[in-house]
Amino acid sequence: MTATEAPAVRDPASYRALEHPRGARWIDVLDQRALPHAQVKIRIASADAAALAIRRMAIRGAPLIGAVGAYGLALALQADAGDAALAKAHAVLDATRPTAANLRWALDRVRDAVALLAPDARADAAWAEADAIAAEDDARNRAIGEHGLALILDVAARKPGPVRVMTHCNAGALATCGWGTATAPIFLAHAQGVSVHVWVSETRPRLQGANLTAWELAQRGVPHTLFVDAASGLLMQRGDVDLVLVGADRVAANGDVCNKIGTYDKALAAHDNGVPFLVGLPSPTLDFTLATGASIPIETREADEVLTVTGRDDYGQATKVALAPHGARAANYAFDVTPARLVTRLITERGIVPATTSGLAAMFPERVAAAGELRR
Amino acid sequence: MTATEAPAVRDPASYRALEHPRGARWIDVLDQRALPHAQVKIRIASADAAALAIRRMAIRGAPLIGAVGAYGLALALQADAGDAALAKAHAVLDATRPTAANLRWALDRVRDAVALLAPDARADAAWAEADAIAAEDDARNRAIGEHGLALILDVAARKPGPVRVMTHCNAGALATCGWGTATAPIFLAHAQGVSVHVWVSETRPRLQGANLTAWELAQRGVPHTLFVDAASGLLMQRGDVDLVLVGADRVAANGDVCNKIGTYDKALAAHDNGVPFLVGLPSPTLDFTLATGASIPIETREADEVLTVTGRDDYGQATKVALAPHGARAANYAFDVTPARLVTRLITERGIVPATTSGLAAMFPERVAAAGELRR
Repeated sequence: MTATEAPAVRDPASYRALEHPRGARWIDVLDQRALPHAQVKIRIASADAAALAIRRMAIRGAPLIGAVGAYGLALALQADAGDAALAKAHAVLDATRPTAANLRWALDRVRDAVALLAPDARADAAWAEADAIAAEDDARNRAIGEHGLALILDVAARKPGPVRVMTHCNAGALATCGWGTATAPIFLAHAQGVSVHVWVSETRPRLQGANLTAWELAQRGVPHTLFVDAASGLLMQRGDVDLVLVGADRVAANGDVCNKIGTYDKALAAHDNGVPFLVGLPSPTLDFTLATGASIPIETREADEVLTVTGRDDYGQATKVALAPHGARAANYAFDVTPARLVTRLITERGIVPATTSGLAAMFPERVAAAGELRR
Repeated sequence: MTATEAPAVRDPASYRALEHPRGARWIDVLDQRALPHAQVKIRIASADAAALAIRRMAIRGAPLIGAVGAYGLALALQADAGDAALAKAHAVLDATRPTAANLRWALDRVRDAVALLAPDARADAAWAEADAIAAEDDARNRAIGEHGLALILDVAARKPGPVRVMTHCNAGALATCGWGTATAPIFLAHAQGVSVHVWVSETRPRLQGANLTAWELAQRGVPHTLFVDAASGLLMQRGDVDLVLVGADRVAANGDVCNKIGTYDKALAAHDNGVPFLVGLPSPTLDFTLATGASIPIETREADEVLTVTGRDDYGQATKVALAPHGARAANYAFDVTPARLVTRLITERGIVPATTSGLAAMFPERVAAAGELRR
């Protein structure tokens, strides 16, 4: 059996974890920077490669970042299972991107699973833990989908025509190890024959909406329409949106939601127009160590992402073009924080919960307790 | 004297009205579709050419659309000064773009100025009326600038550091026959040595912020930073914005403001963060025949503007690239309506006025009376 024929441990669109019969392991990920213009696979066989894939955003999405980080730590231990190597790989992977809570959560979980083991048992245990993290993410997506589906069915029962869901960025299968967070309810509804129409905001600067969400929806045959980020207010004002449904990168104990830049603007427009604003998130996105979203670190990225855009030229090639005058400066904050007061409901794998400290604490008491331990 | 040496009647950046000594007239406009990558001039010598320049957005901005429409009608009368030709050119020019109030206002004004004249006197009178419209726009810009300057000076007096103004789209010199509406106060402040920093939203889909406003500000040495449209909420949340200052395409009798798509989102964020939201507008942008903004016609443009973007490639050439998967659909509403309740103040050439029916009526009683005549 050659390497490329190695059996797939798991097979979602976003990544594939592979294990050669003679012991070598790696993961293959879909390079999301190339979508939708080309499908490019990257083979990740070291912690450094995993860190680079995360930092350069070949893979992105809080849950998938967590899973790839976990596999990255397992790959580090395959090369050197000592305490120093473990600590170093944990630090390198943790430093790749600051905002998503899932990365640190997954890295800590793998580290804690292997820390007390003998070095020669660590790599296997870490790989198994990464597999478990990925499998659990898939299951969480599915559960979020089931809970969110009930909300979509509610709307469908109340009005004729398709249920019109607005989403932002990509909280789809590509952002996770499974069905996606925001997209899981949509995919389930569509699979059940419920008529759904998705408003996809293009999500400048990196265009995850136009490049990834539109691609995923097209692959699955879900009707959708793109719009520029600035049009979300008008679409709600016109009454063309029944629900807003987005993902999250980190959610504080009080329900403040950190997500892709522009989420806050959409929440304001939803509030002003009486449109429910829903957030789909797996519990690893919850950060109970932060009382509010005010101290969530907001990643700042290169100005070049704002000053340029990459698209498909007349020859089908991905081409980068400059948008602004020579020498222009740009600010590029990757995320914003939507205050809990603007969030109608959080959809977690355990169920639908109000975006409040008490609501979240009642649903995740063990996480609140663990965060309390951490703070002491 | 050759045609190109003909004396300039007026010389702002956006256009130049020219009159050959032997009688031929035309206007030269800067093709704003080529900026900032190249400076291309278009010569407009017929009403059809004027209509095409407006429809294809070689020139844009409500006040400039009005002036070019007026010159277009004058050019039509130069070719054929009969009643039928006048009516036809008025209709053709009026149909180019539906949202900006200034176009119909300027066309009606030129038509009314010549309607009772003998045909052989019409072309000269129309040209003079177009010149007057352009000159008055320049003066209105200047007056808006003086009134707005006072607001900027207020902020400067209350805090250290630059006055940080957020704007959207391009309500600059390029959108008008003079200083711009939103930019006039900024240019005056900068000219007086007041430290100003401008937050420029790129303004997808056509990127008037990145392409035009950033270019104008750079030409005049005004410090500025670009950001993606979706970041306006975060920038205000961070406390990085002292004022939002935008232009308008049409303002209803109650102060509802129709402006570039995304203006409403910025007004919501300004309101949520206690940032003054100001609109600079010359009085021809006011439409007293509409009680509220609900019935303002919102222009819908081709999906291609959303599905593609034009930028400068590595060879310095303007190149169009596709952003979305093949076959993707997009909605492209060019404007939205900001409810008057979110508008802190309107800045007109007559002064600063609350965005209310009574406030506007007190400032422009003759316009309210004229609109009443129209409705009867």
